[in-house]
Formats: sequence, C-alpha cells, structure tokens
Amino acid sequence: MDYPNDQAPGAPVRSGIPEHGRIPKYYAVKARIAVLVEELGEGGLIPTERDLADRFEVARETVRQAVRELVLEGRLRRQGRGTVVAGPKLAQPLSLASYTEGVRRQGRTPGRTLVALDRFPCPDALAAETGLTRGEPVWHLERVLLADDERVGLESTYLAVSRAPHLDTDFEPDSSFYAYLRDRGIVFGDADERIETVLATPREALLVGTPPALPMLLIHRVSRDGAGRPLERVRSLYRGDRFSFTARLKG
Amino acid sequence: MDYPNDQAPGAPVRSGIPEHGRIPKYYAVKARIAVLVEELGEGGLIPTERDLADRFEVARETVRQAVRELVLEGRLRRQGRGTVVAGPKLAQPLSLASYTEGVRRQGRTPGRTLVALDRFPCPDALAAETGLTRGEPVWHLERVLLADDERVGLESTYLAVSRAPHLDTDFEPDSSFYAYLRDRGIVFGDADERIETVLATPREALLVGTPPALPMLLIHRVSRDGAGRPLERVRSLYRGDRFSFTARLKG
Repeated sequence: MDYPNDQAPGAPVRSGIPEHGRIPKYYAVKARIAVLVEELGEGGLIPTERDLADRFEVARETVRQAVRELVLEGRLRRQGRGTVVAGPKLAQPLSLASYTEGVRRQGRTPGRTLVALDRFPCPDALAAETGLTRGEPVWHLERVLLADDERVGLESTYLAVSRAPHLDTDFEPDSSFYAYLRDRGIVFGDADERIETVLATPREALLVGTPPALPMLLIHRVSRDGAGRPLERVRSLYRGDRFSFTARLKG
Repeated sequence: MDYPNDQAPGAPVRSGIPEHGRIPKYYAVKARIAVLVEELGEGGLIPTERDLADRFEVARETVRQAVRELVLEGRLRRQGRGTVVAGPKLAQPLSLASYTEGVRRQGRTPGRTLVALDRFPCPDALAAETGLTRGEPVWHLERVLLADDERVGLESTYLAVSRAPHLDTDFEPDSSFYAYLRDRGIVFGDADERIETVLATPREALLVGTPPALPMLLIHRVSRDGAGRPLERVRSLYRGDRFSFTARLKG
C-alpha cells in the first residue's frame, strides 16, 4: 500500500501489521483471508481449511487460528459444516429505549425466550446498587434475546415485586418488558449504564449458542423512574461478534 | 449457594455454571481461582501454576487456561514473573470530554506518547464518513494512551489540515488535543460514537503492550463543530481488561 491510511478509517492502521519485527504467521494468513472476505461479500462460502492451507502453504492449525479469530470478531460465521462471510454487526442505540425498539429500528424482528422468572428477597449487593430495601421481594427475569430468530444475547432484569406484583401471571415473556411497565403507568426517568467486554461463561455460551469464551459486550444498567426512585437493575450480555452500540453525544 | 442470585447482580447468573450438562474442567478451576482473587484483594500474588495445579489436582495446562481467561478479563495481571490480582477497570465516561479529562476525573494521571503525525490527501473512505473533501490535506495523529504511565490504549485522530495548519509545529503530543483545539477557538458541537469489541492486532498489541488477541473496546467517533461541520474522525482502542465506559441516559 502507498500510505497506511489508504484504508477505511475504522480499520486498524497498517492493517495491524507492525512497522518493525515479525508478523505472526497466522496473522499474515488472517489478513489474506480478510481480503477474500471482502471479495466474497456477505453469505459467501470460504474455502475449507485444507484448501486454504494448501493455497497459503501453511499448516492447517495456522489457518484454523486465523479463521477462529475472524469468527470471534464476527467477520466470518459457521454455517452447517462450512464457514461463511458474516453480515455487519447490529448497531444498537445506547438509550432508554428497550432492546425491542432498538432491534426494530434496524429492520430486524426482536424476540426473547424465557430462561427463568424467580422471586427472592433482595440481597445486600442488589440493595446497595439500586437503593431497594434489603429483604424486600424482587423479581429476577432472565431471557435470551433474539434477532430474526438468531440468539444474540442474554438479559437479567431485577425489579421490586411491588412494582409489578403480577409479573408471573400477566406478562408474556416474549414481549417487551418496557412496554409492559409503560402500560402499568411506570415512567422511565433516567439510567446509568456501564459497558465492558467480558468472556462468555460456559452457561452463557450454552444459552446464547456461542463458542465458549467469545468476547461479549456486557451492559450494566440501573434505571430510575420519573420521580428518581430506583426501578430496575439490568445485566445485558450481547454477542461481541454480532453487536455494536451507538451514542449521540452533545456538547 | 442457596439461590442463584445471592451474588452481585453484575456477576453472571449461577457464576456461569450451566444448570445441566458438564462444567469444563478449566472453568471449575477458574471459579476456584476467582474465589482466591476475592480473598487476596488488589495486588495480592496468586500461587504459581504448579502450586495451583497441585492444590486443585489438575494438569498445569488446565490452570494455565483458567489464569489466561482471568488475565484477559482484567481480574488478574502479570507482574514480573508472577501474577497478581488486578485493580478495578477504569470507568471512562462516554462524553464529548476528552480522554484526558475522563482519566483525570478518576484521579489518574493521563499521558500520551506520539506514534506518528502524518499529513496526506483525504482518501475516499474518510471523505465519505466525515463529509471532508476527497483529496484535501488531512492530519493523522496516532498516540498511545497512558494512565499513570501504564499503556492502556491507542488513538488515531483524522482532522482536516485547514482546521489546525500548524499541528506539526505547535502541538505538544503529550497534551490534550481537545484543549489544543479549544485554545484555537474550535467548539465541539456533537459527535456520533460507536463502540464494539475487537481483538488486538499484532501491531496494536506491540504498541499497547498487551497479550496478542486481547479483547479490546474500540470506539469510533465522528464529531462536528458548533456549526455542524465535520471536525474529526477518531478511532480509539482501549484495553478491554482495563476499561469500561459509562453513560447517563435521559428519558
């Protein structure tokens, strides 16, 4: 390349290749497969590991490591026994709007499947984080998040039972929890969020159907109602290979 | 445990252990080391791989995998030849304020070291993203980000040369770029950000001093001035084991 910046500004400078020192062999292979990915476009089937190893004259293990990273990053995805070029990551707005609304705005169909709905006395840690009273009954609603029937995340919501006493009987787990609260006159005031990257645990990988130890985006949320009283504590885990989050910042 | 939720609400449900099916052996070891991490507290030295393997009666490779994941997640860090309990992740606000201001607010000392300052004609991809004119001269300022002398990230800023014609002579690379712009009467209006998780490239791992393929948080920013004209395109990469980002959402 003529200049390190002749590529998209979102891409790593120099395609990630050090100015000095050696390039790991698997990374050179990864860069060549990335070129293939661009050429093939979404849904395109990449050659088998064996074919790639022959073409690049490297060991199959080297190809495997390169493909594994491209899968972890969401540029390739497994499909049946093959590996195809993945579509772009979903770009979900960081906003008080729900998962449901965010996914709909992107023209995808949101869905959820219930893992568990439990009722238990508010433990110390939850009370400290939310301002709820220690020992008061709280719900824990855990759901797998879907986009077009694809499992993309896992959400745990903690809410005082006093806020929604009949959650266990009158809430349809596949529907929007925020719409349910709004229908009951609960107004969202504001929320604090924190976003970080973590590795999927074995349980999470099983529920979401991801490779174990896939990097995930984890969002912690504590929200308050219009009067500033604690409303819910949410732990939302999203596949790092399928999601990004957007925000509009004002000066 | 009595109830899956007797732990902190930010922690994985059931500590990540599946309700059914087998727990991978390395993960059982990881959970036991995580208990040690809690007991030892920040800076505490964990036993050697050999000692842990003896204590848990597993192979050293199993311990190694568990420790590797805890390091990738930022719960442990390498220090010299040992491995110690890491401090909490920095919580950087997602705001128009600069990296400098965010780190200061957390009581840490921000720093930067210059990687490169280049001038080149605006390529198509950058023009399309920012609204700059194709071919107009732009700066690319690349810096390693520091907190208390620890390398924590890598930032690429793209800016029209017309905005700061003397950037190469009158800007001190270790200072705040946003303060520099403000001193020249440039007002930030708003910005669009997108956050995702990616793996460190070999070049990035070398510059930031991270293990290769560490999950990173990547923030793309396109900002505009007070009149809504394009100002800069930034690609900021932060160590996923050292950073989280916070936002206050309004209803």
